[in-house]
Amino acid sequence: MAKLMGRSIVGFGDGDEVSERFYGINPANGQRLQPGYSSAKAADVEHAAQLAAEAFRVYGRTSGRERGAFLRAIAANIDSLTTELVERAHQETALPPGRLQGETARTCGQLRLFAQVAEEGSWVGARIDRADPDRKPAAKPDIRSMLRPLGPVAVFGASNFPLAFSVAGGDTASAFAAGNPVIVKAHPAHPGTSELVGQAISASVRECGLPEGVFSLLFDSATQVGVALVTHPLVKAVGFTGSRAAGRVLMDLAAARPEPIPFFGEMSSTNPVFVLPGALRERGEAIATGLHASFTLGAGQFCTKPGIVFVPQGSDAQLLVKKLQELVLGSTPFQLLTPGIRSSYLSAVAGRKVHATVKSITEAPAPAPAAENGLSVGSVLFETDAASFLKSFQLEGEIFGPTTLLIQHSSRSELLEIARKLEGHLTATIHGTEQDLHDFGDLVAILENKVGRLVFNGFPTGVEVSHAMVHGGPYPATSDGRSTSVGSQAIFRFARPVCYQGFPDDALPEELKDSNPLRIWRMIEGEMTREANVPVLVSESR
Amino acid sequence: MAKLMGRSIVGFGDGDEVSERFYGINPANGQRLQPGYSSAKAADVEHAAQLAAEAFRVYGRTSGRERGAFLRAIAANIDSLTTELVERAHQETALPPGRLQGETARTCGQLRLFAQVAEEGSWVGARIDRADPDRKPAAKPDIRSMLRPLGPVAVFGASNFPLAFSVAGGDTASAFAAGNPVIVKAHPAHPGTSELVGQAISASVRECGLPEGVFSLLFDSATQVGVALVTHPLVKAVGFTGSRAAGRVLMDLAAARPEPIPFFGEMSSTNPVFVLPGALRERGEAIATGLHASFTLGAGQFCTKPGIVFVPQGSDAQLLVKKLQELVLGSTPFQLLTPGIRSSYLSAVAGRKVHATVKSITEAPAPAPAAENGLSVGSVLFETDAASFLKSFQLEGEIFGPTTLLIQHSSRSELLEIARKLEGHLTATIHGTEQDLHDFGDLVAILENKVGRLVFNGFPTGVEVSHAMVHGGPYPATSDGRSTSVGSQAIFRFARPVCYQGFPDDALPEELKDSNPLRIWRMIEGEMTREANVPVLVSESR
Repeated sequence: MAKLMGRSIVGFGDGDEVSERFYGINPANGQRLQPGYSSAKAADVEHAAQLAAEAFRVYGRTSGRERGAFLRAIAANIDSLTTELVERAHQETALPPGRLQGETARTCGQLRLFAQVAEEGSWVGARIDRADPDRKPAAKPDIRSMLRPLGPVAVFGASNFPLAFSVAGGDTASAFAAGNPVIVKAHPAHPGTSELVGQAISASVRECGLPEGVFSLLFDSATQVGVALVTHPLVKAVGFTGSRAAGRVLMDLAAARPEPIPFFGEMSSTNPVFVLPGALRERGEAIATGLHASFTLGAGQFCTKPGIVFVPQGSDAQLLVKKLQELVLGSTPFQLLTPGIRSSYLSAVAGRKVHATVKSITEAPAPAPAAENGLSVGSVLFETDAASFLKSFQLEGEIFGPTTLLIQHSSRSELLEIARKLEGHLTATIHGTEQDLHDFGDLVAILENKVGRLVFNGFPTGVEVSHAMVHGGPYPATSDGRSTSVGSQAIFRFARPVCYQGFPDDALPEELKDSNPLRIWRMIEGEMTREANVPVLVSESR
Repeated sequence: MAKLMGRSIVGFGDGDEVSERFYGINPANGQRLQPGYSSAKAADVEHAAQLAAEAFRVYGRTSGRERGAFLRAIAANIDSLTTELVERAHQETALPPGRLQGETARTCGQLRLFAQVAEEGSWVGARIDRADPDRKPAAKPDIRSMLRPLGPVAVFGASNFPLAFSVAGGDTASAFAAGNPVIVKAHPAHPGTSELVGQAISASVRECGLPEGVFSLLFDSATQVGVALVTHPLVKAVGFTGSRAAGRVLMDLAAARPEPIPFFGEMSSTNPVFVLPGALRERGEAIATGLHASFTLGAGQFCTKPGIVFVPQGSDAQLLVKKLQELVLGSTPFQLLTPGIRSSYLSAVAGRKVHATVKSITEAPAPAPAAENGLSVGSVLFETDAASFLKSFQLEGEIFGPTTLLIQHSSRSELLEIARKLEGHLTATIHGTEQDLHDFGDLVAILENKVGRLVFNGFPTGVEVSHAMVHGGPYPATSDGRSTSVGSQAIFRFARPVCYQGFPDDALPEELKDSNPLRIWRMIEGEMTREANVPVLVSESR
C-alpha cells in the first residue's frame, strides 16, 4: 500500500509542509479524508519550474523510443495501483468503482497511445526540401523541418475525471510524448488520488533514469499556485480543464505575460442536440432514453453533457417529452463531486426555475440536505420554446449536474437562426434519418463552424481516445479552437516547428537524416514517403 | 493601365471617400504620389466584415480545386500587372526595380504554391478511425477528422515587402487556400501598389464566380481600421507582419476580446549570427562579405536581417572586422522606406552611439538630410564585448536599417550563457566547420529552443518559400511560435480540426468518404495511406 504524505512532489523531493492543511471530502457523507494536504509555497513553484527547465535540456532531446518507454512505465505503475486508486478515488469523488476502474484503464490506454505515437515518430511532421545549387536566380538551400517540444508545461487537473483528465491525464501524456517536462497543479477535490498517481509518475522518472525535473505535482486549495505557474517565465505552455470563469482568468494571465504563452483551456460546453423530424417520428422514445442516460452520466458532470436539446414542436415531441419525464421522475439522487459544484448546481437550477420563459417540467425528488446525504441532488428537466431561447441566450450557459433544457421550435428557419447564433461548443449532435440529414444539410454546415465534434445518431458523452478524435471547439468551449485535448492530435498543442537550413546530415536530428533511420513518414518535396534515403535532386527534372 | 481610385475596396463596391486624404511618399525624393487615399470609415469595416461572414458560408465549403483556381487567377492577374506594379512600387518604396520584379514573381509563386496545396488536398490531415460494433465494454464509433477553415481573416500588409507580405502575400494566400475570406488592411506606405493588387484579387473573385465578400481591402493612415478589424466579432483570426510595438498592441486586443481569436503576428527579430572559431580562421573575410550583403539587403529592412553577430575575440576576428569596416565605408547611402522608419533608425543609431559600452567602429557617410536626398541614411557598424552585452540586454532589440552589432566573446561558456539568455528570434545562423558544429552541439541545442530556423553556413536573409520553411519562432519573434508565416505550413494557422462521428458516407466531406475520391493522404487507424476505400475493421484482428 502506497503511503500518502500530504505534500507536493517537487522533482525527487517533497514540497514544504504548512500548518494549515486541506482535506479531500467524501461526497457521499461529507466526511474529511486523511491525510491533510499542504498547499505548495511560492518556493515550491520556483523550485519545480527551475528543475523542469533544467530537465528540459535532457528530456527535450530524448528519442521517441525513450519517451515511449517512460509513458509505458507510468501506465504500468498506474495499472499496478488500480485497486488502491479506485478505492481512494471512490472515497474522494463518490463515483462508482466500475466507472473508476474504467477510467483507470482509459488513463493507461491514453498513456500507451501516446507512447505508440512517440515511438512510431511520424507525428513530428518531418519535411525535407532538397538543395538545388543550380537554381536560378538563386541557389536553393536544403531545408528540413520537424516539430520540437516547447519546454515546461503546466497542467491543471480537472475535478470531474480524477484520473483521465488529471495528474496523468491526456494533457500530461501528450506533453510528455512531445518531449516536455510537466508540472501538474492537482485538483483539490481528489488530492489522495492525485498523490498516488504522482508517485507512480515519479517512480517512472527514476526507473527510466530521467532528470527529476521532468515531473512535479503541486497541491493548492486556493489559486496562488495556479497563477504562479501560468505566469512563471520558465513555463512555456498550459493545459487546463475546468470552468469557464477560471479558464478565462488563467487564459488572460497567459496572454498578458511579458512573453505570452500558448494556453489550452477546455472550459465550457452545452453540447446542443438537434432531434430532426424523421428521427423524432421513428424513435422519439429511444432518443429520450439515450438522452437521459447521457445527461445524467457521471451525475451530469461531463464536459460533453447534452445541456440543450432542440425538438420540433408537435405530437411527436410529446412522446419524447413524456418518456423523458418518466425517466427523470424515476431516477435516484445523484452525488455531485464537490460542495462547490453542488451549490452552483442548486443556484443555477433555482435561477432557471424563476426564469420568465422556462418551465421546470419534471423534477426528481432530492433527499433533504442532511449530512448523511452528502452532496446528493435531484435531476431536473426544463423546457422552453425557441422564441424565448432566442431572446435569452444565457440559457445556452453550462450547468454542471443532472439537468437539461428542452427547446421546442416551430419552424426550420427558427432552428437555423438559433444554430447560427450559438457560441462555440465541444460537440453538436444530430438525431435524424438519412432523409433528415439531407434536408438539414444547412444545419450541418452551420454546426461545422460551431463545434469540434459532430455526432450523428449517438450521444456526445463517451469521448473516444483515438487518432481522429477532436475534443475541442471554438471559444468558449476551448481557449483555442485549433486544438484537441483528447486523442493523439492533442500532442500538437505542445510542439512547434523548427527548420534546419544547410545542415550536414550528421548534425541533423534522426527524423531529418537522409537515411530516415526511424522509418517515419516524411514529406519530401511535397510528396509523402517513408523510404530511406532522400533522393538527390536532379536539376533537369524541375 | 489600371486606374487608381484612392478608395477602399469593399466586396465589389468602393469604400466611402473622405475629405482628408493621405498619400504615398516617394522615399527617393520625399514627393507625394497621386492619387490621395481615403481612410476607410467604421461603416466600411462593418460592411466588409458582414460581407466576409456571408461569403464564408459559400467560400468555406468550396473544394480545393475551386480554391486553387481562384489562387491561380490571382497570380495570373498579378503577373499581367507586373510592369505597372513594379513601376508604382518603385515610386512608393524606392526599392530597386529588379528586387520588385523578383518580389512580384515570388508573390505569384506563393499563390501558386498554395493553389497546389489546396488542389492536392492532403493538407487537411484527414484521419479515419473505423467503427467496431463488437468492441467491449463499449462499441467503437466511426470517427473521421479533418481541418476546416476558421472564418473571415484580417491581414495586415507589411511595409517592407510591398508585394510578398502585403495585399496578396503569404498571409492572404494561405488564408484563402484554407477556405477563409480575407479583409486586408493596406499598409499606408504603398497604397497604390496595394490598390493595384487589390483590383487584381477583386477581378479574380468575379472571374471565379465567388461571393464578393471573399475579399476586401481597407485603407487607413492611422490605427482605427486595424483596431476595428481585430476586435470585430465576425473576424475569426488575424495575420500581421510589422513592429513589435504595434504587434503587441493588436495581439493584446485579440486576446482581450469577449471571444478571443488566434493572432499570428510576425514582429521582431535580431537573427543572431554565431561565427565559430574554425570557420573564422578558415574564411573570416568571406563571412564578412556575406554578412555585409545580408545586413544591408533591402537597406537592412528585412525581418531576417542579422543584427547581432558573435565572434570569438582574437586576431582572426580582427580580419573579419577589418573587412566589414571596409565594406561599410565603401557602401553608398541606403534609402529607407518611410519617414517613420528613418527617424526610428536615426534615433536608435544615435542611442547606440552614446551607449556606455558600445563603440560605433565604422560609419558610412550619409548625405545631408536635404529634400532631394529623400530618406537616405548611412550604414553603421557597432561593436561591443560579450560581458557588456550580457549586462545590457536591450542591445538585443531590433533596429530596422543597415546596421549590425558585432559582439566579441572571450570564452565558449560566455557564448553559451548569452545564447541561453536570448529571447525568441526568427532565425539563428552558425558559421562553422563540421568540427565546430560537433564541438558546439550544445549551442545548437540551445538555439533550437530560441528560433524557428537554424541556418548553417549561410545567411538568414532570403527566405525560401517551400514546404519545409519555418518563418516563425518564440515570442517576440512571433506572437505564437507554433506557426510559420512563410511556406506551405502557413496554411495551418487558419484552420481547425473538426471530427464527424457516426456520419453516413454520403453526408461526409469528400476528404473523409470511404472511397477517397480526392486520392489524398489520410491516416486510417494510425496508418498513412492514399488508397481508395476504407477497409472494414475485422474485430478478430484487434
